[in-house]
Amino acid sequence: MQVVHTISALRELLQGQTSVGFVPTMGFLHQGHASLIRQARQDHQTVVLSIFVNPTQFGPSEDFASYPRDLEHDMQIAQEAGADLIFAPDVREMYPEGFATSIEVKGAALPLEGEKRPGHFSGVATVVLKLLNIVGAQSAYFGEKDFQQVAVIRQLVRDLNHPTRIVACPTLREESGLAMSSRNSYFTPEQKSRADVIYRALMASRAAFQQGERNAEAILEAGRVVLAREEELKLEYFTLVDAATLQQVEVLGERDHRLLVAARLFNVRLIDNMGLL
Amino acid sequence: MQVVHTISALRELLQGQTSVGFVPTMGFLHQGHASLIRQARQDHQTVVLSIFVNPTQFGPSEDFASYPRDLEHDMQIAQEAGADLIFAPDVREMYPEGFATSIEVKGAALPLEGEKRPGHFSGVATVVLKLLNIVGAQSAYFGEKDFQQVAVIRQLVRDLNHPTRIVACPTLREESGLAMSSRNSYFTPEQKSRADVIYRALMASRAAFQQGERNAEAILEAGRVVLAREEELKLEYFTLVDAATLQQVEVLGERDHRLLVAARLFNVRLIDNMGLL
Repeated sequence: MQVVHTISALRELLQGQTSVGFVPTMGFLHQGHASLIRQARQDHQTVVLSIFVNPTQFGPSEDFASYPRDLEHDMQIAQEAGADLIFAPDVREMYPEGFATSIEVKGAALPLEGEKRPGHFSGVATVVLKLLNIVGAQSAYFGEKDFQQVAVIRQLVRDLNHPTRIVACPTLREESGLAMSSRNSYFTPEQKSRADVIYRALMASRAAFQQGERNAEAILEAGRVVLAREEELKLEYFTLVDAATLQQVEVLGERDHRLLVAARLFNVRLIDNMGLL
Repeated sequence: MQVVHTISALRELLQGQTSVGFVPTMGFLHQGHASLIRQARQDHQTVVLSIFVNPTQFGPSEDFASYPRDLEHDMQIAQEAGADLIFAPDVREMYPEGFATSIEVKGAALPLEGEKRPGHFSGVATVVLKLLNIVGAQSAYFGEKDFQQVAVIRQLVRDLNHPTRIVACPTLREESGLAMSSRNSYFTPEQKSRADVIYRALMASRAAFQQGERNAEAILEAGRVVLAREEELKLEYFTLVDAATLQQVEVLGERDHRLLVAARLFNVRLIDNMGLL
């Protein structure tokens, strides 16, 4: 496995490759990332992993500076999972002087995270489009934990007719049910032991659906009861949406639905989601 | 030569092609377009021409509805110049229901046309990026008549790391010096015979430079005198800029400079430009 830091070095190594799978990440890899790499490994001849903590998708009061970084450990996980190449550019390589282009995605990017984190998805869309162009992969792999992000990237790629295929892979969870996330490293062990409340709330809402409830408000109420029992939790949203448009659903119809939740627990911001089936 | 109207048909025909030159146009082709096709023909195995009058780059009071269209004549010019494939999508093919993505380019897109035509370059950048992604060409050819447009597209492609190479080709002119443009068809013959005033103004400013003048204001004054003699002309701007950044220049330095002009003559909007050397 090779690590490169410049676009030109990466392009040289990938020249002539016609079966490339690409896993874009912000590093501090966990088994969720490893599962993406393994899927790319299964589908393609060459697997590229990028590690780039993208400043433009963080708000001014967010955790860009403190976001966890550990390239040595990342290399180990990437190698074990089967990556061939790590692309780890610095900020200047991605945003050289004079950089002046940005992407706006409306539609799936507007509600929820779009409201809570203004500019976030513009930053995500811009860096993902750059990375897709740099790598020129046939497929790119994203974790479903960031459900709305996947919807936004699908919209971006569809709207701009980008040739890379977007593949969403299931969320990996700790034994407690807590969705794996680099940001879980912000928790003390005691705090982390209480973070499964989000998973339990999603499961409670799903159980309500599976027991026959079809009213969105009643399905959500089953989860809200669980969340209300954790006094350290500050809920940002807990909602049931159309899985493609991310628009809130009142009465369940024929289309695919998704529970989405965002909350702060001990001031760590967590997001998670779950289907109803 | 083949004409296709859908993205999927175009992609099928281009599958496996590794030497594609692409000429994006709004149709109503003239010899300026033909020169782009001939350059692409010289450089590549396959030449694709697109014809699409892009609604999102026209302002609400601009000439989208009346923009001249003539596919039959375009096919003849394209064939003679050596195009292999014409891609002529309709608006719904390019902007299907739910389309929600736009590109903002600052930098080279801000002054001049950016001020006179708000939203124009966002529309241009978005459609050009879509077309570059759809065709997947090695090179794309643009006319220098739209000098600022070429600068914006260069910035777009550089900022987003798009793999297509951007090639700018010299402006073709009528015998009178009038830059070839589909919009020249709006003129009556009498009006058209007076439209060379723009070319004569550019030449007068260039002559001032060539005679040793190095003060930007004095160079521009030489052209303004020419423009002032045409009473039907409403000048929008006549300026000397850095050819890369499009920023106005006061005193001529080491960098490449460009005269840029926009004006209405008999209510037809004309733009043109010229180097000093």
